[in-house]
Amino acid sequence: MQEIQITRTAQPKEKPADESKLGFGNIFTDHMFIMEYHEGQGWHAPRIEPYHPIALEPSAMVFHYAQEMFEGMKAYHTEDGRVLLFRPERNIARAANTCERLCIPPVPQEDFMNALKTLISVDKDWIPTQPGTSLYIRPFIIATDSHLGVHPSHSYLFMIILSPSGAYYAGGLDPVKIWIEDDYVRAVRGGIGEAKAGGNYAASLKAQVKGEKEGYAQVLWLDGVERRYIEEVGSMNIFFKIGGKVVTPALNGSILPGVTRATCLDLCRAWGMDAEERRVSVEELVAAARDGSLEECWGSGTAAVISPVGTLRYGDEVMEIAGGGIGPVSQKLYDTVTGIQTGKFPDEFGWTVEVK
Amino acid sequence: MQEIQITRTAQPKEKPADESKLGFGNIFTDHMFIMEYHEGQGWHAPRIEPYHPIALEPSAMVFHYAQEMFEGMKAYHTEDGRVLLFRPERNIARAANTCERLCIPPVPQEDFMNALKTLISVDKDWIPTQPGTSLYIRPFIIATDSHLGVHPSHSYLFMIILSPSGAYYAGGLDPVKIWIEDDYVRAVRGGIGEAKAGGNYAASLKAQVKGEKEGYAQVLWLDGVERRYIEEVGSMNIFFKIGGKVVTPALNGSILPGVTRATCLDLCRAWGMDAEERRVSVEELVAAARDGSLEECWGSGTAAVISPVGTLRYGDEVMEIAGGGIGPVSQKLYDTVTGIQTGKFPDEFGWTVEVK
Repeated sequence: MQEIQITRTAQPKEKPADESKLGFGNIFTDHMFIMEYHEGQGWHAPRIEPYHPIALEPSAMVFHYAQEMFEGMKAYHTEDGRVLLFRPERNIARAANTCERLCIPPVPQEDFMNALKTLISVDKDWIPTQPGTSLYIRPFIIATDSHLGVHPSHSYLFMIILSPSGAYYAGGLDPVKIWIEDDYVRAVRGGIGEAKAGGNYAASLKAQVKGEKEGYAQVLWLDGVERRYIEEVGSMNIFFKIGGKVVTPALNGSILPGVTRATCLDLCRAWGMDAEERRVSVEELVAAARDGSLEECWGSGTAAVISPVGTLRYGDEVMEIAGGGIGPVSQKLYDTVTGIQTGKFPDEFGWTVEVK
Repeated sequence: MQEIQITRTAQPKEKPADESKLGFGNIFTDHMFIMEYHEGQGWHAPRIEPYHPIALEPSAMVFHYAQEMFEGMKAYHTEDGRVLLFRPERNIARAANTCERLCIPPVPQEDFMNALKTLISVDKDWIPTQPGTSLYIRPFIIATDSHLGVHPSHSYLFMIILSPSGAYYAGGLDPVKIWIEDDYVRAVRGGIGEAKAGGNYAASLKAQVKGEKEGYAQVLWLDGVERRYIEEVGSMNIFFKIGGKVVTPALNGSILPGVTRATCLDLCRAWGMDAEERRVSVEELVAAARDGSLEECWGSGTAAVISPVGTLRYGDEVMEIAGGGIGPVSQKLYDTVTGIQTGKFPDEFGWTVEVK
């Protein structure tokens, strides 16, 4: 493990006074982590510096060919003053998979974990304390070769930035309306859908804007081949409760393997529920909504944790779920996951990692 | 049209002494064009400045969600000392389409054209003069909002950088070997395949590296739905001559509408050849290769212009085309397109635009 050089800011920023107005990803802390990769040297020079702009050549590959990846995770303040991460080893492992798909050299796992812990420790006073708030953590890697040939870069920057954040959805745990998109496609098998790659998000913007114009908070994607099978929401995986069973689309290569998704499955199974990972067609959903067996729907993601879905729309079919409210499994998952994350609930599964 | 403010460098760089060693996209000229977009102000502040690094917040959207687009075009030095662009209005129109798909506000067409001409004029001494060389032009737009919510940015930078370049393929007009990829997928209908978006190129790297390991210069992609129909090569469109007819995959939404592709079709038709845009299955290619009717294959693109394909490989099937050499249509297209581009051939179609 490489030693991190720490340079503390001489001019600390003012911390947000009103934690109810944090929003998501708007405010950044006093410091950032940087590590460099150059071919032949590997990942090196890990350091924490005052938060500052990055200067890159206009020809830097990240600007042209989007060779870039990111992760998203959170740190929480517990009532007894500890700082907890939630299953960070899963994000680090997923980051390695994303890097592999995008031909980016993965950051050594222990350096990644050490970077997270050290940076959060340096900026621990930035972790908000009000219910629903957290310190959002954004590790990302960008390709920095100043060359226009289409080829994997030989140099990269790995950075971590931190953002004190409120609830992802401004309304808190309110049911959202989701638009099932049947025109635009996010990803396809054989593509980069299961990678946390910037390009997936650029591809999603157009449908997201279209859905918002119709009054829907997010878009639910169908598979790119048959355009029948449910994949995921813009920034979340999706779950259904149909006829008493919990169902989520199986990881098929074009769906992001969410950490909160895995957590929902683990918890539901621990609670003795049937929890299936399989293909779910939009026709099955419509039929289940019509005959009343579509009991609940929720999204799972690091930013939102659990987001109950009150309405799904597919073409002209508007499906109201759980009376447009919050179903009991959605509520229990939200309470349990956030309870474990914030240390209110016992961590029976060993999911939390303390930052000293 | 907005007036461009020009700041010339006080420290001109040394120009490359040996034009045979330029390569592609390695060297950049003394100046760059920049224009800014902010919501409410539109595109504004067009300026030419000494070539310099760009400083962006680590949270800039381009680093995380790849909201970025680019174009590629070339300026040529003619023997009588003029500077020509080739069908630039097509690149400008395509840029607008890419912007639309990626929720980026398009640059006004006349400002785009004026930026091209003015920047090239300022750096005209950088245009190389040896046969096969040109000034590669890279316009690009990046999203600059410093915010981590997944949403179209409210601010952007439009830049143009210039790179004196040799032939794209180091070997010049030598037949290349192309690998037909049946595992990874580049794009799918409903996605961003027809946009010149960074994400498409990030998605292509893995297969490109795989093909190179097998000794192949580039990858030919199949459609993402049936994985049967030919789409395009990494940085080129693809053409075949089968049984006397010129055939290229139809623009189906997942293929880049190449300017050189359109030029090949226009020329072949002007020469009285049958030139079809339609679906081409890999099985048709294999059958044509076996029965001898696959007479030629070439790639078309701004960087390579025309790139004869001597070998196509699909699984275990290795197809040698035109005896592994350069077919007559490929050669005639290369000579004609580069002849018109460099002013050696008369411009009967009105394709060139002079930079004064």
